[in-house]
Amino acid sequence: MIELTRRATFSASHYYWNEAWPAEKNEQVFGRCANRNGHGHNYTLEVTVAGQPDPVTGFVVDLKWLKDVMEREVLAAYDHRHLNLEVAEFAATVPTTENIAIAAWKRLEPVIESAGGARLSRVRIYETPEIFAEYRGEA
Amino acid sequence: MIELTRRATFSASHYYWNEAWPAEKNEQVFGRCANRNGHGHNYTLEVTVAGQPDPVTGFVVDLKWLKDVMEREVLAAYDHRHLNLEVAEFAATVPTTENIAIAAWKRLEPVIESAGGARLSRVRIYETPEIFAEYRGEA
Amino acid sequence: MIELTRRATFSASHYYWNEAWPAEKNEQVFGRCANRNGHGHNYTLEVTVAGQPDPVTGFVVDLKWLKDVMEREVLAAYDHRHLNLEVAEFAATVPTTENIAIAAWKRLEPVIESAGGARLSRVRIYETPEIFAEYRGEA
Amino acid sequence: MIELTRRATFSASHYYWNEAWPAEKNEQVFGRCANRNGHGHNYTLEVTVAGQPDPVTGFVVDLKWLKDVMEREVLAAYDHRHLNLEVAEFAATVPTTENIAIAAWKRLEPVIESAGGARLSRVRIYETPEIFAEYRGEA
Amino acid sequence: MIELTRRATFSASHYYWNEAWPAEKNEQVFGRCANRNGHGHNYTLEVTVAGQPDPVTGFVVDLKWLKDVMEREVLAAYDHRHLNLEVAEFAATVPTTENIAIAAWKRLEPVIESAGGARLSRVRIYETPEIFAEYRGEA
Amino acid sequence: MIELTRRATFSASHYYWNEAWPAEKNEQVFGRCANRNGHGHNYTLEVTVAGQPDPVTGFVVDLKWLKDVMEREVLAAYDHRHLNLEVAEFAATVPTTENIAIAAWKRLEPVIESAGGARLSRVRIYETPEIFAEYRGEA
Repeated sequence: MIELTRRATFSASHYYWNEAWPAEKNEQVFGRCANRNGHGHNYTLEVTVAGQPDPVTGFVVDLKWLKDVMEREVLAAYDHRHLNLEVAEFAATVPTTENIAIAAWKRLEPVIESAGGARLSRVRIYETPEIFAEYRGEA
Repeated sequence: MIELTRRATFSASHYYWNEAWPAEKNEQVFGRCANRNGHGHNYTLEVTVAGQPDPVTGFVVDLKWLKDVMEREVLAAYDHRHLNLEVAEFAATVPTTENIAIAAWKRLEPVIESAGGARLSRVRIYETPEIFAEYRGEA
Repeated sequence: MIELTRRATFSASHYYWNEAWPAEKNEQVFGRCANRNGHGHNYTLEVTVAGQPDPVTGFVVDLKWLKDVMEREVLAAYDHRHLNLEVAEFAATVPTTENIAIAAWKRLEPVIESAGGARLSRVRIYETPEIFAEYRGEA
Repeated sequence: MIELTRRATFSASHYYWNEAWPAEKNEQVFGRCANRNGHGHNYTLEVTVAGQPDPVTGFVVDLKWLKDVMEREVLAAYDHRHLNLEVAEFAATVPTTENIAIAAWKRLEPVIESAGGARLSRVRIYETPEIFAEYRGEA
Repeated sequence: MIELTRRATFSASHYYWNEAWPAEKNEQVFGRCANRNGHGHNYTLEVTVAGQPDPVTGFVVDLKWLKDVMEREVLAAYDHRHLNLEVAEFAATVPTTENIAIAAWKRLEPVIESAGGARLSRVRIYETPEIFAEYRGEA
Repeated sequence: MIELTRRATFSASHYYWNEAWPAEKNEQVFGRCANRNGHGHNYTLEVTVAGQPDPVTGFVVDLKWLKDVMEREVLAAYDHRHLNLEVAEFAATVPTTENIAIAAWKRLEPVIESAGGARLSRVRIYETPEIFAEYRGEA
């Protein structure tokens, strides 16, 4: 078995806010991220699939196909968007790096699963070069 | 003469929109950047000063002082902010990479000038690792 | 005046060989680069234009337009190509980093010039992250 | 147990082609990579060994030795080479990133195994900063 | 379960020397690293914690808290220090990348453990961008 | 005219200290850098030469020669050394990034000058990825 990884980037806005809390508590817990005008990042999405290389093509998956899947399932929804205001899964869930990694997994996994062949092995989201979250699905 | 450069990063939201235009023209000219919900970036601010190294300290400027100036004059205003909505110089000016570089220069130049010694030589703003603007002041 | 820079990457093969020399001299001068089977690099093309930001849009140039120009004028010819065998300007000129930078300038300059507005200021070619050539045209 | 990793780079050419297929099918499956003139990359080889640090030296392995092994076993064969035309294991196997990772493992594993001490834990090949394959051997 | 990672950097000096050996053997085994005047690196400390995102905040841990823990437990002791001469755990242990990773784990693990919630999953130390050690604790 | 640049790295220790000052003043001016045990960095030396590409080879200079010059003139003296204690030019001059850039220029310029052909155009020293000094000689 071998793992094959592809990266892509997207730029998005977000803020951290819990509607059930008063403003003071939001500011205390979330600090500068609680600014309701939003702030943003250049995120990196890193997708890893695992499988056997095809004996003829040498591909675990076709990287052009994987790029298309990443763009259609994740970047089309997240890039140049305000995650809280425009992406359904963050309407009531705080778009932390952790939650974005899980949400991207949920978007990618059924499509990669239904294609047969390789399985989704890992999703990483970098919020900055210094901070990233990694999700491998539920065991 | 020698040039000394320091980098710092900030995360901010922005959008591109000209109030004098109808929505269609904004979308045609600015594409996905015209999304009024905003999107964001991890910007890099790169500040270069020029001067002679002090013969005793070997410093063109004290880099701790330069870091403080960058944080107080630029990052305190831009980091975790929505540039269009919260930064005065972008209320009526589109916060393109070019205009952010000029605005950061205008914030930094009087402070560095009044400190004596080195002069501000160059400001670079990276919007992504692939796109940056550089300003050297008016000749 | 402000400078605006955009980067793009391409992957290509090349070798260093002077037809007028015997093999021994080619190997002596060009070392491992004289291998006629070719070897390759992930090149980075970095294009800088200089001008005034448009007072309405804040653009020195439209970065989408610049991306299209870079792709049409340079990447379409160089990416996934063997520079010696498939690119006209390297049929009789060794495709060193220096010569690729000059050749990319010659491809880009007339198009950017004829568009009016900003002028081409600088072309950089990175052969690896450790080696790059920079050309600013003939003064 | 601790893992120790070292990186090195090499520049090589390759193409994707299956002799059993007509040209049309090669172009359809492999796209621009099917260009028989070849194209190239700056590859990164990342080798990880696992073991206990020696209580006296603090070394899992001597990193100078590991560098020599990587150069002798992999870089001497791959660097500044055309992988399809000059490297035995790719004469009949498409040199995809996946297959290069497996081939590098096969070159490194017996040498590291026979040295005793640490075992080879992981080989990564980066074709570009955006694409990499990782192999951990057969379980 | 999800893993969340944060990076920080520190600058330190070290040398490799075993007091029980004569100088010749130290130089033979440790090469240029045996220079008793010391040499130094910009190290990167990369800390990974594993847990469930809090359903309200979306945090596996509060990244500001993790930053503070990393600074207080590791950087305060290692940054701008000579590891052999000023850090207790390297008085009699060679400060190789491997040993620094283990030592940083031992500093961080009790604090993260006692906080409840997420557990320390992985510590990486990069000595240079080309060399890093990774420790996951004793199974 | 074209500029060609090559990078190399070295690891060294240093401290900032002025013998003419009492300890208190050294600590006040130089902060943590005044630690006499030293601390260290992975420095990057970036050397730029300017000239015309040779019409036959396409070289401004032979990059293998430039690498050898950088290693012989700078890295052999600085790498794995304590700059204050082992490098003559820093015995009485504080090894700031600025002064290291000037010192590297002085080491490189006569050798490149005496080779004829290209001239030394620029020396950059990166102390970290965030801080660098650039020297272009005396006009």
